[in-house]
Amino acid sequence: MSASEKIWTAGLVIIGDEILSGRTHDKNIAQVASWLQVQGIRLAEVRVVPDVQEKIVEAVNALRADNDYLFTTGGIGPTHDDITVDAVAEALGVEVVIHPTARGILEKYYADKGGLNEGRLRMARVPEGADLIPNRMSGAPGIRLGNVVLMAGVPHITAGMLDALTGELEGGAPLITETIGCWVAESEVANILREAEQAHENCQIGSYPFFREGRVGANFVIRSTSKDDLQSCIDTLCDGLSTAGYDFTPGGI
Amino acid sequence: MSASEKIWTAGLVIIGDEILSGRTHDKNIAQVASWLQVQGIRLAEVRVVPDVQEKIVEAVNALRADNDYLFTTGGIGPTHDDITVDAVAEALGVEVVIHPTARGILEKYYADKGGLNEGRLRMARVPEGADLIPNRMSGAPGIRLGNVVLMAGVPHITAGMLDALTGELEGGAPLITETIGCWVAESEVANILREAEQAHENCQIGSYPFFREGRVGANFVIRSTSKDDLQSCIDTLCDGLSTAGYDFTPGGI
Repeated sequence: MSASEKIWTAGLVIIGDEILSGRTHDKNIAQVASWLQVQGIRLAEVRVVPDVQEKIVEAVNALRADNDYLFTTGGIGPTHDDITVDAVAEALGVEVVIHPTARGILEKYYADKGGLNEGRLRMARVPEGADLIPNRMSGAPGIRLGNVVLMAGVPHITAGMLDALTGELEGGAPLITETIGCWVAESEVANILREAEQAHENCQIGSYPFFREGRVGANFVIRSTSKDDLQSCIDTLCDGLSTAGYDFTPGGI
Repeated sequence: MSASEKIWTAGLVIIGDEILSGRTHDKNIAQVASWLQVQGIRLAEVRVVPDVQEKIVEAVNALRADNDYLFTTGGIGPTHDDITVDAVAEALGVEVVIHPTARGILEKYYADKGGLNEGRLRMARVPEGADLIPNRMSGAPGIRLGNVVLMAGVPHITAGMLDALTGELEGGAPLITETIGCWVAESEVANILREAEQAHENCQIGSYPFFREGRVGANFVIRSTSKDDLQSCIDTLCDGLSTAGYDFTPGGI
């Protein structure tokens, strides 16, 4: 990676009392993070906040100031606790308006399901100036306003919205990763890891220990935007492990 | 809940590039949240930050200023990317010291595994003044300094540390919840939900839609610290659903 190459980053705000209560296990962090990597955008921070407007506004403003993109999941449904649109409009300093295309989508979707009502019409509300993100699953669209992207909280609907956004966002070189697995306590090889990372400033090495089959092991994940630097770091790491007498498994264990 | 009753809250900082890369699916938010509820402490916000000291310091200071407790998971292992202790010590303005009891635990644990080395000794480092949280799983203890609690990132080790802390923290009345399930599109009953919540200021109602067996449905989760208020809110909600002609399932679907 040259010094001038821009690293694109995103923040993610997850809106939902159900995550903070422990009732619902979050699945969106991992799927948004994995999707962003392929777009060449790095997930830099996640905040999980309750269904409280001032908390959402605060998190949205903090993370969009620090990053190229700001994603939210949750709180764009039809019920009283769905306040993401209001909070993001406040954060951006714009009005909430009914998006005519969204209204049309919802009218059609609900035509044989009892028609539009006050709650359902809420899902056509957007911050003024926003575009829609198609939702093949359940009618109500996601919302994009420049570098701010509002998605559903239900993971398979979120996934559909990410699909619709694929290739639409400007990013940098995707981060590439390789994994080296080793049946060793990570504490035995901490020096080898540190030295390999320090010798390659464009690479990071993460160490992820595990206990399996009654033995301790670890996967070492090497990350870089440069294929050459990545390979050089892997070579240094593997040389270090070999010299110290450890076998390792390319691809991880 | 009387107006004077204190609501105890906690913030959680999850430290780990592996979560932000999408490589590892977080399991700690849900388990920490559920455990806190039983202690009468509400999880108010979560931040997931990378293995970067200034980012950890910033998140720790923001969330401990806003809450009664601050928990962290991750980054207390033996490798170069384990910097939580350094970051929390910086946030608290104290030195990092070797805790003699932690050193003793690790010496014993590693006695037949090659002994202590530089990496392993890192796991005896604590912010000055801290106490230890026992770790039955893998030797290296968690750390507690007043209302700041540092735990491992590997979920089953985190679970053991939460066990060890059970009953040790002051909290308030536990939040109690009941669920009412209904085979209805939540958008059909948004008004009923909003009115039931507005009539009970000590209760929150969350609406969690799902698609199953080719049909739409939703679970309505009612939360309160008062059993009486909770029951009254449930009664209002169920009356509203009945009057509108919907069947519902106490306990949820």
